[in-house]
Amino acid sequence: MGEASQLQKVYNQSKYKLANHGVRDIEVLRKAFESRDGGLVSDLYGTGQIIEDFQSKMASYLGKEDAVFFPSGTMAQQIALRIWCDEKGNKKVAYHPLSHLEIHEEDGLKELHHIETVLLADRKRVIDLNDVMNMEDGVSAVLLELPQREIGGQLPSFETLRDISEYCRVNKTRLHLDGARLLEVLPYYGKTAAEVCALFDSVYVSLYKGVGGIAGAILAGDQDFIKQSKVWKRRYGGDLISLYPYIIPADYYFDMRAHRMEQYFKEAKEVAERFNACYGISTLPAVPVSNMFHVHFHFSKEQVEPILLEVEQQSGIGLTSHLKEINDQSCYFEVHMGDMYSEIPEELVIKAFDLLNQRMKRDLNNEAVYE
Amino acid sequence: MGEASQLQKVYNQSKYKLANHGVRDIEVLRKAFESRDGGLVSDLYGTGQIIEDFQSKMASYLGKEDAVFFPSGTMAQQIALRIWCDEKGNKKVAYHPLSHLEIHEEDGLKELHHIETVLLADRKRVIDLNDVMNMEDGVSAVLLELPQREIGGQLPSFETLRDISEYCRVNKTRLHLDGARLLEVLPYYGKTAAEVCALFDSVYVSLYKGVGGIAGAILAGDQDFIKQSKVWKRRYGGDLISLYPYIIPADYYFDMRAHRMEQYFKEAKEVAERFNACYGISTLPAVPVSNMFHVHFHFSKEQVEPILLEVEQQSGIGLTSHLKEINDQSCYFEVHMGDMYSEIPEELVIKAFDLLNQRMKRDLNNEAVYE
Repeated sequence: MGEASQLQKVYNQSKYKLANHGVRDIEVLRKAFESRDGGLVSDLYGTGQIIEDFQSKMASYLGKEDAVFFPSGTMAQQIALRIWCDEKGNKKVAYHPLSHLEIHEEDGLKELHHIETVLLADRKRVIDLNDVMNMEDGVSAVLLELPQREIGGQLPSFETLRDISEYCRVNKTRLHLDGARLLEVLPYYGKTAAEVCALFDSVYVSLYKGVGGIAGAILAGDQDFIKQSKVWKRRYGGDLISLYPYIIPADYYFDMRAHRMEQYFKEAKEVAERFNACYGISTLPAVPVSNMFHVHFHFSKEQVEPILLEVEQQSGIGLTSHLKEINDQSCYFEVHMGDMYSEIPEELVIKAFDLLNQRMKRDLNNEAVYE
Repeated sequence: MGEASQLQKVYNQSKYKLANHGVRDIEVLRKAFESRDGGLVSDLYGTGQIIEDFQSKMASYLGKEDAVFFPSGTMAQQIALRIWCDEKGNKKVAYHPLSHLEIHEEDGLKELHHIETVLLADRKRVIDLNDVMNMEDGVSAVLLELPQREIGGQLPSFETLRDISEYCRVNKTRLHLDGARLLEVLPYYGKTAAEVCALFDSVYVSLYKGVGGIAGAILAGDQDFIKQSKVWKRRYGGDLISLYPYIIPADYYFDMRAHRMEQYFKEAKEVAERFNACYGISTLPAVPVSNMFHVHFHFSKEQVEPILLEVEQQSGIGLTSHLKEINDQSCYFEVHMGDMYSEIPEELVIKAFDLLNQRMKRDLNNEAVYE
């Protein structure tokens, strides 16, 4: 913990933050509730104005017949895949090896549903049409994550999406969108949410990533699919008596930020360019296609951490609160651009990156290891 | 919907309410957050001060090694039973035919875990020692619900609990407590929560029933059990990035109401007596053993509803918002005593029950059907 927690501390104390929407404190909740009438009555086990209105709003935004609010994307996506497996009568789905379901959910899909998973593409690139065309038989549903978070937020082209969608339709394979960060990729595609979602049979969207709510997810699809998903939501214990503590903030921050995604995308490209101009640093992807990217250092965590500490302390800008080790010669951190960046005076940003570049050169110039 | 929604409307407009803690509106949330510092940082996927402190507090209150906060009791209890089945290597559990898991969860336990259920006792009475001694072989865990909600909130004696616990311990069968309303039965038993929980291997407690929080549950047990339950919590999608919107209210209302259970219990006995003094009405149980009971009318819903409407309108006291039909000759509603009762002037209560008794006699005297 030692150095890592020191970096966390310096980051927390920095006057400015490069990324994100700000601290996840209880003020985030209070602000969303401020303008609401205190007599507004709770939703009740999935019924009531608060939840029904928001579900309709999101269904319409995503261009789907119906939508349901879930406490989490983990729950929503396992259920979506289970429904498609039951429809086809074959418990097999395909997704990327770095899918959230494969690496972050303690194998919930397999443990709770006994669904077999087929891994498409490899850990370094996104799924393309060939991967889908060449996958083994009997797959009930393919899940695509847009953008592919664990590789810096990469995307297939819109044409590839269209081709995969067409192929799946013809071959009676359901296509599910892991759109945890769907809003964040719309500016790159130059499409509306509904235009992207039209290529998919079912769609999950997170309400606390780019949107910046507290927690919660939307699952959208046709009426029969949503009806089934509500049965599973109850089975999972996700049909809470009251979900409004998440819905009201989701609605509030959706209205506040849905139209800012273009700005975050532009800022991501600008900031990635600044990182790429520094000695021994490159971003993945080189040019971001959403508000997110990874910052890779071609040096060890032990070498980079003191430099980041110094830059954050001297510039007053928190770049990251922690570094992830890849191996002895490289480490990285993840960036999601949000409301914080536009609060930093530009001259401070320029100074901070100058300092980062200088320190990287001064401390590591003789040790650089490039392939 | 017609008449039922008229009763709902009149109930909502009544100046006073006989039962419950008041309307479940967003003020319930705001009040709990009022006194907290806005800079208090969110919990993060099950870690952080807010969640860890509350879990420790509840573990200590329940006399267990450890505890974990769940979004729902449905999720917590399925997981508890799954862990005990895995331990024994046999997917079979036993509970009451009217258990929440059997009738309100869309068969989540069976659909998600393929656990076979053995039904103990019958739909009219609580489980006793004989039921447990005579149950079929291979049961990994027995679940007892205290009080048994669907039959008005009935309880076995503490001696019976002790005997069942002892029998299960000797026979290596795990005993799980569905303590959705555990706090509410402590005054009747004259025991602490820890004294009751000591008889069980694992315990679930709801935080929005007697406690009156917004949603959420605590699952408590030994450290290894809780460690396993956290893995399943993630699998279910219950390990939300932020659970504080439920934890802070749970903590706030627990502190406010845990010591009021004696008062609710006393009031339940008083109000049940008032109902039992009315023509054609009896409560189940006849003398409550917690803050809850059912009010049974020995007439049809169509006969009783206009009377309740009139009594509520004239007295200004909302007795219930809806009636449940049992058959052509009987109907009932459920009562949970809470903060609302002590706000009603006693003379109004007396008047309302006098009126109820008169109207029952006047309208239904010739039609009474007793067995």
